[in-house]
Amino acid sequence: MYLPKLFKSEDYLLLKEIIIENSFSSLITFNGRIRSTKAMFLLCENNSNKFHLETHLSRANPISKSIEKDDEVLCDFLGDHTYISSSWYDHINVSTWNYEAVQVYGGVTFMSDDELYQHLSTLTQKYEASQKCPLTVEKMGQAYIEKEMKGALGIKIMPTEVAIKQKLSQNRDDNDYNNIIQNLEQSDGIMNQIIAHKMKALRKP
Amino acid sequence: MYLPKLFKSEDYLLLKEIIIENSFSSLITFNGRIRSTKAMFLLCENNSNKFHLETHLSRANPISKSIEKDDEVLCDFLGDHTYISSSWYDHINVSTWNYEAVQVYGGVTFMSDDELYQHLSTLTQKYEASQKCPLTVEKMGQAYIEKEMKGALGIKIMPTEVAIKQKLSQNRDDNDYNNIIQNLEQSDGIMNQIIAHKMKALRKP
Repeated sequence: MYLPKLFKSEDYLLLKEIIIENSFSSLITFNGRIRSTKAMFLLCENNSNKFHLETHLSRANPISKSIEKDDEVLCDFLGDHTYISSSWYDHINVSTWNYEAVQVYGGVTFMSDDELYQHLSTLTQKYEASQKCPLTVEKMGQAYIEKEMKGALGIKIMPTEVAIKQKLSQNRDDNDYNNIIQNLEQSDGIMNQIIAHKMKALRKP
Repeated sequence: MYLPKLFKSEDYLLLKEIIIENSFSSLITFNGRIRSTKAMFLLCENNSNKFHLETHLSRANPISKSIEKDDEVLCDFLGDHTYISSSWYDHINVSTWNYEAVQVYGGVTFMSDDELYQHLSTLTQKYEASQKCPLTVEKMGQAYIEKEMKGALGIKIMPTEVAIKQKLSQNRDDNDYNNIIQNLEQSDGIMNQIIAHKMKALRKP
């Protein structure tokens, strides 16, 4: 992604936050044609800020039919984002968008049955934990899960290149920066409030 | 995108809604490598449900440097979406995600200076209309805009293939369908409320 120095982050905790909060994101492949599918991603930490990504697709998905081992894919996560009006600046300028994003390029490997079972189990635990009656893989029963697994392709993405972008008006002086925060706070919409909050945290008075 | 018949929509108004409400979305290209950038899209209607997409990128964006006329690109729009727990069904099943999405494949042409000016003018009018002191291109002055335009690449995408996906539990019976709505309505988060509302509209009692 286009990543000017000013907006480039190396904050692993921010990467984690963006991926975990926006885990339903895009898996992009190319095998003769660009393809993008939405999928539920899991960030799997190994050690010392190293991670890989996991997801699974229906075997009927065109990507499942075209993807091959070691293909380079792009996992594309957009975090919080909102429009920034240049009418909030003290000088003529163009409007823009503030946002956080992560892009992970990586090589593909396919999961074994055991790995896919573990993946589905972890994924289910993550999302079901907050339910009144959590329905975990373990509760679904072995026979049911084995049948479901036959229709799914488990994919591991081992990162080769990671980009973390935090574009929050860092190129503005204090006056414009504070005006942006104030205008966002006065705007409707939760995203405006979240971006205002993040900007406050980034440049403390 | 993976588009089972049950989730395939041909509703042009839904397409418009998804693109307009999620106009900050992904432009995906391939020129030796997959690239994806976030950009502000404009849906430009011609006549009788025909449209093309417009966007612009910084000339410093790696995509601007690699994209060529007639390249096939993918414009990828994710609409409203939320997790659907299978613990809300009356039988064992796997959890899923409900969502709306549009994907537009198209060929690239580059804007002339006049087209880019018109594009920026329309874009600015769209986003500035709701501001207290709208800052339109016209107010920025010709000299300023001409300088800005030198740094921007205007891109038109003429659609060759369009997919509209509306995945809202259409494969569930009335009992599960109503349970999903009820559980979404009892959950926190605006997205849960929006998806519940859309499901209600889709299958009226």
